[in-house]
Amino acid sequence: MKDAFSQRLQRRADETVALLERLLGNALLPGETTRPERLLAAMRHGVFNGGKRLRPFLLIETAEIFGATGVSPTRCAAALECVHCYSLIHDDLPAMDDDDMRRGKPTVHKAFDEATAILAGDALLTLALDILADEETHADPAIRAELVLALARASGLGGMAGGQMLDLAAEGRQLGEDEIVTLQAMKTGALIRFACEAGAIVGRAGEAERAAMAQFGEKIGKAFQLADDMLDLTASPERLGKETAKDSGRGKATLVALYGLEESRRMADRLTVEALELLSPFGERAHWLEAVARFIVGRDH
Amino acid sequence: MKDAFSQRLQRRADETVALLERLLGNALLPGETTRPERLLAAMRHGVFNGGKRLRPFLLIETAEIFGATGVSPTRCAAALECVHCYSLIHDDLPAMDDDDMRRGKPTVHKAFDEATAILAGDALLTLALDILADEETHADPAIRAELVLALARASGLGGMAGGQMLDLAAEGRQLGEDEIVTLQAMKTGALIRFACEAGAIVGRAGEAERAAMAQFGEKIGKAFQLADDMLDLTASPERLGKETAKDSGRGKATLVALYGLEESRRMADRLTVEALELLSPFGERAHWLEAVARFIVGRDH
Repeated sequence: MKDAFSQRLQRRADETVALLERLLGNALLPGETTRPERLLAAMRHGVFNGGKRLRPFLLIETAEIFGATGVSPTRCAAALECVHCYSLIHDDLPAMDDDDMRRGKPTVHKAFDEATAILAGDALLTLALDILADEETHADPAIRAELVLALARASGLGGMAGGQMLDLAAEGRQLGEDEIVTLQAMKTGALIRFACEAGAIVGRAGEAERAAMAQFGEKIGKAFQLADDMLDLTASPERLGKETAKDSGRGKATLVALYGLEESRRMADRLTVEALELLSPFGERAHWLEAVARFIVGRDH
Repeated sequence: MKDAFSQRLQRRADETVALLERLLGNALLPGETTRPERLLAAMRHGVFNGGKRLRPFLLIETAEIFGATGVSPTRCAAALECVHCYSLIHDDLPAMDDDDMRRGKPTVHKAFDEATAILAGDALLTLALDILADEETHADPAIRAELVLALARASGLGGMAGGQMLDLAAEGRQLGEDEIVTLQAMKTGALIRFACEAGAIVGRAGEAERAAMAQFGEKIGKAFQLADDMLDLTASPERLGKETAKDSGRGKATLVALYGLEESRRMADRLTVEALELLSPFGERAHWLEAVARFIVGRDH
């Protein structure tokens, strides 16, 4: 039987996927005359990949702390997941990380082709901002504009895309701790931070509360990255559904490679404690964020 | 000496480029900790390409009809040009149209590498929505959200990216007129339409006026495509700064290939007449849009 956290995670994933099913269906949006079949199929392949939907969970649970439930946070979560999935599609391309498999399935450029994979990523990124700007996401256009701005900034030159650039430039080169921290904060941290900050935005949290949530996202993002890099060294390929020890084999810069498993474990635990402290003012309302912070350092896949 | 239209086109291009210089400079936006040098350089290479900046011109001149001048329309124009340039970078990739040169300079993936070109496109698309959502673009968040939505919809699955997919799928296959019209309306038409519609949005035009401007954009977009395809057949490579007769050599579907030069010329002229009719309610205020409609069918490069 699943524990309560796993059930909750599954529920939020199901809600997000159900909405994505609608958004990536055949129904046309206003202004659309056709949705090219092959492109739509490639986008769906990249999105309906059996992921845990951790970012949507963070967003929806953060929003609930501030009293926002239902379609608003779920749409934000779907938008965020579109950006996450676009980044996976582009990162998997031969010119980037050149991965053939993801979660036991062929990556988008293997299942389709490179051109289609590039376009599917482009169209998912575009769809994400479309979702956020649509009035169905929130009645208040100021909230919508803020969400768009925050997601764009987390994803672009100074965020995820920039982080991927730093990561590519780092291959075969020894990075220092500061460089690795910056790289990871941008490449994977920015979207996790956004998940928590967006939950606060859509819940109309005050400035201090929004900052606390962004900081919480930062801390667990770092812990998540450490856990991911530790798993890459220790887990079996069957368990992860992808090749392991690939990042270290490539000479990719990780803090785990720099400090070793034991110190990395300690760092992850310390980040978790700091993240939990940020939640203390919210008491019982922050129950599921506490659970996810603990899950991140405890997960084995 | 340059004629008045060329001078005006140059002035709007200069305004747009000056703003893009700032947006793609080293100054960090709020939340950014670094702008990876190589990625920024690739984005700049793709943007500062000596283009005519026709879309920015359309946007700024349409906005002026409705009384909007200065930073608001220029920021919208810069955002639109970011999307246009991202699409060129991705379309030029080996997996797509595989072009080595654009306007007499190496394309981004030749000047840098494929991975960097993919990321530069991604980051330009993201920056475009960032620009629009920022309060510097317009004090009213409802206008900003509307601009984001319209640009996302023009660019995504049902717009430009979808059109590029249809175009790739069409290579080596004979398309009918309807298919070509749909493909071109999405691939190149949607952004030109957006240029005019966004000018109306930022100028707070009424619904009917906004629709008229969108229609005007549609008409001149079609005329532009016809002119482009005619040029591809007739102009010298030196004049265009890229290979010519390449699209027809590839078996790319164009109306010019379907109907021949003479009929295509007639169609372009007819579209121009219809476009000019849409401007008649605006009288002298629409002077520059009239000029651009005439320029599009008359241009020889």
